[in-house]
Amino acid sequence: MVYLNNTPVDELLQGFLKVLGDYRFNSVETISVIDGLDRTLAENIFAKRSVPHYHSSAMDGYQVRAEDTKMANVDNPIFLSQEKIKYCDTGELIEPQFDSVIKIEDVHKRDNGIEIIGGATKWQNIRPIGEDITAHDLLFTVGRKLQPMDIAALIASGTYQIKVFKKPKVAIIPTGDEIIPWQKEPKEGEIPDSNSQLFANMIKQWGGEPTVYPVTPDNFDLLERVVKEAWEENDLILVNAGSSAGSEDYTSKVINHLGKVYYHGVAIKPGKPAIFGKIGEKPVIGIPGYPVSAYVVMEEIIKKLYFYLKGEKLPKRKKIEGKLTKPVNSDLKFQEYVRVKVGKIKEQYVVTPLARGAALMSTVMDGDGFLIIPQNSEGYRAGEVVQVELFEDKDFDDIFVCIGSHDLALDILATYLAPQFSLSSAHVGSLGGIMAVKKGETHFAGIHLLDPQTGEYNISYVKKYLKDTGAILVHLAKRTQGLMVAKGNPLNINSIRDLKGKRIANRQKGAGTRVLLDYLMEKEKIKPGEIEGYNREYFTHLAVAQEVKSNRADAAMGIYAAAKAMDLDFVPLYEESYDLLVTPDFFNSPNFKFVLETLRTKRFRREVEELGGYNLNKSGEIIFVEEEKN
Amino acid sequence: MVYLNNTPVDELLQGFLKVLGDYRFNSVETISVIDGLDRTLAENIFAKRSVPHYHSSAMDGYQVRAEDTKMANVDNPIFLSQEKIKYCDTGELIEPQFDSVIKIEDVHKRDNGIEIIGGATKWQNIRPIGEDITAHDLLFTVGRKLQPMDIAALIASGTYQIKVFKKPKVAIIPTGDEIIPWQKEPKEGEIPDSNSQLFANMIKQWGGEPTVYPVTPDNFDLLERVVKEAWEENDLILVNAGSSAGSEDYTSKVINHLGKVYYHGVAIKPGKPAIFGKIGEKPVIGIPGYPVSAYVVMEEIIKKLYFYLKGEKLPKRKKIEGKLTKPVNSDLKFQEYVRVKVGKIKEQYVVTPLARGAALMSTVMDGDGFLIIPQNSEGYRAGEVVQVELFEDKDFDDIFVCIGSHDLALDILATYLAPQFSLSSAHVGSLGGIMAVKKGETHFAGIHLLDPQTGEYNISYVKKYLKDTGAILVHLAKRTQGLMVAKGNPLNINSIRDLKGKRIANRQKGAGTRVLLDYLMEKEKIKPGEIEGYNREYFTHLAVAQEVKSNRADAAMGIYAAAKAMDLDFVPLYEESYDLLVTPDFFNSPNFKFVLETLRTKRFRREVEELGGYNLNKSGEIIFVEEEKN
Repeated sequence: MVYLNNTPVDELLQGFLKVLGDYRFNSVETISVIDGLDRTLAENIFAKRSVPHYHSSAMDGYQVRAEDTKMANVDNPIFLSQEKIKYCDTGELIEPQFDSVIKIEDVHKRDNGIEIIGGATKWQNIRPIGEDITAHDLLFTVGRKLQPMDIAALIASGTYQIKVFKKPKVAIIPTGDEIIPWQKEPKEGEIPDSNSQLFANMIKQWGGEPTVYPVTPDNFDLLERVVKEAWEENDLILVNAGSSAGSEDYTSKVINHLGKVYYHGVAIKPGKPAIFGKIGEKPVIGIPGYPVSAYVVMEEIIKKLYFYLKGEKLPKRKKIEGKLTKPVNSDLKFQEYVRVKVGKIKEQYVVTPLARGAALMSTVMDGDGFLIIPQNSEGYRAGEVVQVELFEDKDFDDIFVCIGSHDLALDILATYLAPQFSLSSAHVGSLGGIMAVKKGETHFAGIHLLDPQTGEYNISYVKKYLKDTGAILVHLAKRTQGLMVAKGNPLNINSIRDLKGKRIANRQKGAGTRVLLDYLMEKEKIKPGEIEGYNREYFTHLAVAQEVKSNRADAAMGIYAAAKAMDLDFVPLYEESYDLLVTPDFFNSPNFKFVLETLRTKRFRREVEELGGYNLNKSGEIIFVEEEKN
Repeated sequence: MVYLNNTPVDELLQGFLKVLGDYRFNSVETISVIDGLDRTLAENIFAKRSVPHYHSSAMDGYQVRAEDTKMANVDNPIFLSQEKIKYCDTGELIEPQFDSVIKIEDVHKRDNGIEIIGGATKWQNIRPIGEDITAHDLLFTVGRKLQPMDIAALIASGTYQIKVFKKPKVAIIPTGDEIIPWQKEPKEGEIPDSNSQLFANMIKQWGGEPTVYPVTPDNFDLLERVVKEAWEENDLILVNAGSSAGSEDYTSKVINHLGKVYYHGVAIKPGKPAIFGKIGEKPVIGIPGYPVSAYVVMEEIIKKLYFYLKGEKLPKRKKIEGKLTKPVNSDLKFQEYVRVKVGKIKEQYVVTPLARGAALMSTVMDGDGFLIIPQNSEGYRAGEVVQVELFEDKDFDDIFVCIGSHDLALDILATYLAPQFSLSSAHVGSLGGIMAVKKGETHFAGIHLLDPQTGEYNISYVKKYLKDTGAILVHLAKRTQGLMVAKGNPLNINSIRDLKGKRIANRQKGAGTRVLLDYLMEKEKIKPGEIEGYNREYFTHLAVAQEVKSNRADAAMGIYAAAKAMDLDFVPLYEESYDLLVTPDFFNSPNFKFVLETLRTKRFRREVEELGGYNLNKSGEIIFVEEEKN
């Protein structure tokens, strides 16, 4: 019931490649050159003919013999009769009797001939045979990945068929009694097979040819049969999952029966329960089941293996260095792959770690890259400069960072910024947003913080926290907060007082909604202990709504749009002000002007108001300016 | 007969986009989510269900009620009977009566139950509904280009069909009486249609759907018919060429007949004779015929137009700054696109301009990027730091630069360096190579320079030119030089003396072969004036061989391999030493060790010797070391 080993990733890769010996993805096929885009040549190619393959005119003009023209000048124009010239378009063949071309612009047409006022030199305006490519030139060597101009040059120089490496065939075998085909609606306890499509699309991006096999239940014989079949038809076999050494995990048993497992367990997190085996000469890999574990194993191990076996250079992830906004602790036993969001604020990259769970695909979907913490490292402190390996190369100059409270209006704003700009948002609550502005870790933040003393929104917080840094408060929306309750309001919850003795789902400390709840409870003199679930915290409106929806809570404080989305009833309690807190630097940039103009358009205002519970009459108004000190 | 205008490229783009008004490539289609890789969403997508969609076990273990476990500790193990527990694999549904999971590793199996030695907390090892994605979460906004994990997340959260923007359909219409279908063997005066495949593959790389129409002759009615047909079926229409305002250029006439030409002539070089018109609401563009002109217009104008009309961000070319090795002069009237090779020597980029001709596809094929010289600039001096826009992002750390004399053995060497390293070579002759080593513009150079005084190869030149810089001379091959003559040697040329009164094709000054010819002529007291064509210079062995082959020269000095390739007779005259001249820095790097080891392998030696005229017995021997001063 324990992993066979916990091999460091580099040791595993080196060892496993040794196990695979001379095995390579090197089957060759012959294809038409016009299907060659991004394919890899399996042969050296020499030009079959020269380009151009005949002496050709470089201009529209007249072919002449230079000899006949040499006395011509402005004072002594020369007439050349029809027999001594030949008109030609660009690209036309130079007839053997001629050795020069005079541009049409330099010629005066006369009856039966032309007049010229300058001599022509031999070979002028002629492209000689082989000017571009000479027959027998070595054009490309094995391994060239063909680009558009390469294909044009191959055609021009007479190559019509090319030998290329076949796309490696990769089998993807989903297994598990709980796994159902991706397009089926899952019941409770059933999981749709989304991993196979993750793998298939990664393989496509690597230039391979994936085949997804039908889902195989947890049964040794059935799995063995599918693995055998896949082995016949493919160059690399991936089995997902059955790799975690649980009681029903047949992957390693099947590999050991047909071949041999060499490694089971790799010292990375997520991704540790991977299996590396060989059947015949071919690698057969067990990929863990959690999507992020699977992704890390694919990106960090299978990709390296794949490109090595393909004999191609590994496409490297681009690296950037940035300042970490939160501490990240790491298990000494593993090399950890923390997904992070990256922003660029005043020429500095800012790196925010996302949640760590191996099951959270949203951390890859929303993340920008990996912060890789080596084995035997305890992690990094907030403020440390760390290296991030990006999932894809991006231009962070065009990405606006928005860390703070989340609101759907921000998502709608993002659609107005596209395609030129995009919005990178992280949800840390209003107070977290203020801190991010103060520390220069965001361009702006959405905030909605009630001052219990004044009943006023946001301004007093800005004055308190940002008196040195400075910041500008720009109004986004009035938003109705209230209680989300089950459809039909069966418990008849109509006010804060009615929460006593009931179960709620609460928002995290520092969230504007939490501050509002505390304010309203305070006014009614209700103590946290009087409400069950007060200490269980969630990070979004929809998350608390979900708790009500699934009857794990009787009520939750939140906005109307969330209640509507989850088909819950809504008890309106308070109209709050949701504003954008903007750093002085970003406020003065042309980029923010674009945001401001959008906030003021009718189209944007209407689109947000249609969500329900919003009033955007004054969106884009500047509410308060805290000047930057020194 | 003149261009209608010479509009600066930015002015043209802005003006033409204004002409196109609201026209966009915004047709939408619904596809299966599993076909969504790299497609662009045309809708905002909200999660249809939560992930997970039920409370699920995060571990293999036992479901329990936390309540039942709270008294357990090491001194007081608790036994839980079969009714109070339920075994579950990772991912299984948590039954309503349970609220906690104990990992299998922390459990002792007993008859009819389990024993535990620690209490469980509520919700431990349980993934609650919506932990990853909550139903109604906004997952993606319009414009998202879907990546593998996005597709997995869409499947997991219940989206099976997605609305995406259709791939823009682009018509490519090749025209011209001289143009023949790409797969036909051309006669003299005929040009195979390679441009259409260049365009089609560029469009594919941009995510579009190209259609190449049959080649249309220079005929107004025929062209009009094809343009009409293409207009019906496509979003963007490209006509190639007939754009240069020559007598048979019908493109602008047809556009003006069916719609209107707005711009004819753009102030770029190459690429100036482009035509920008509109028929109905759709853009119809005339692309120039020369391949590099066409490429520049596609990269610099059509690509910007395409992404703008698609509503997507333009993929920017990566920029680097490097030192120019040669001066580049530019026409004030045009923005010029000079193709360059880039190398990285001691952390500095080195930029070498390639030939300028608009017909030379090899300059794009072999080039790394554009040096763009603005309109009204006279160009750059050698040594100036210039900006280069790369055709594709490359890791120049893994590219060895070899500027000097060319030899096929270097091409073969390149195949041994792949896939880890590649070789970027430029052919400037032996003396050019020595200068490149001296100026630090190359890692190494191939040279074969005879010292007329001593009859010895290379060493005296190194002593003379590199006494301060230092350099190491490494032997590559003994190579037989001689005279290439027509098959059967009809003029009976058997020695240098026999060249008197004959026509030759000569190599450029500074080429080792030229030095050898001069040496042999000197020995025989033959004057340059006694040989026709002595002053006509070519840059490669194959280029001079081509002159002999096409009977424009009677003989040329060169190597056996070139004569063999062109099926010429060969009169051996001299065995020379072709060596590698290596900078001290590169010589001491691990990278060069790899080169050196390759040179010493039997396999490499045999492969080169099979070309004929080579002896590699001593390849990899260090011949001479000139120490670096200070």
